[in-house]
Amino acid sequence: MEIKGVQDFYPDDLSYCYGCGRLNEYGYQLKSYWDGEETVARFTPKPYHTAVPGFVYGGLIASLIDCHGTGSAALAAYKNENRQVGSFPPFRFVTASLQVDYLKPTPIGVELELRGKILEVKGRKVITEIYVFANGVMTAKGKVVAVQITSDFIKV
Amino acid sequence: MEIKGVQDFYPDDLSYCYGCGRLNEYGYQLKSYWDGEETVARFTPKPYHTAVPGFVYGGLIASLIDCHGTGSAALAAYKNENRQVGSFPPFRFVTASLQVDYLKPTPIGVELELRGKILEVKGRKVITEIYVFANGVMTAKGKVVAVQITSDFIKV
Repeated sequence: MEIKGVQDFYPDDLSYCYGCGRLNEYGYQLKSYWDGEETVARFTPKPYHTAVPGFVYGGLIASLIDCHGTGSAALAAYKNENRQVGSFPPFRFVTASLQVDYLKPTPIGVELELRGKILEVKGRKVITEIYVFANGVMTAKGKVVAVQITSDFIKV
Repeated sequence: MEIKGVQDFYPDDLSYCYGCGRLNEYGYQLKSYWDGEETVARFTPKPYHTAVPGFVYGGLIASLIDCHGTGSAALAAYKNENRQVGSFPPFRFVTASLQVDYLKPTPIGVELELRGKILEVKGRKVITEIYVFANGVMTAKGKVVAVQITSDFIKV
């Protein structure tokens, strides 16, 4: 059975994100879902997503942390309102700030696991910490401050 | 005349970075060079590099800041040794940490300008601040801590 991510419930017009939009055929189509008290997403980089030979490009790692951060924020928002993921109206967050620490080189050629911890849910803002694992070893960690999109977003 | 970036002088085996490697045909091939006391790079996102319709994907912005940060670090390292860019041996940096603040949505469909300021050059570490402009308006800024690759990097 295909795993549904919170991104599968984003409204169509907000589902073209290069990192996690299910309707962006060129993108990564990341899917974030709950695994106990943590959120999880998985992604296998392409061979050309290299930094230096053998290792994953840091910009891709930042991108995955970014999207799993906004996805985790949406999951946390549903939970905070005791609502089922995908119930109406949907939540959609964008990133206000992103911090990434590269702890060690991330080997390419294996599936990466991103795990998210919800640090704070306050009004329209959700802060998460995201950890990147390759072969069970943590290679990067990030902090994402995500803000819920309001209808006036595009007028900002 | 084609502008040469510091990335054009990276050794061949370190020129496959998805963000700035001249030999990565799938990547962004970012080029960073001096413009007075600042460094500059330019990039026009593809139509599919969206976050929400009309705006650039934050992960791409993080990626560009990352690569212009390591490129600017290499430029600063040459300058710090009073050496011409491209003189032997070449400098190649990787990112230790990356901080990105998204100040406002970045419109898609225009060339982005990245400008870099060197904050610190100390031993193998260079810290830069990178600003992203669209239509002359700053939409994001970042801080990159870059560390020079040593020959034992791949054994880390």
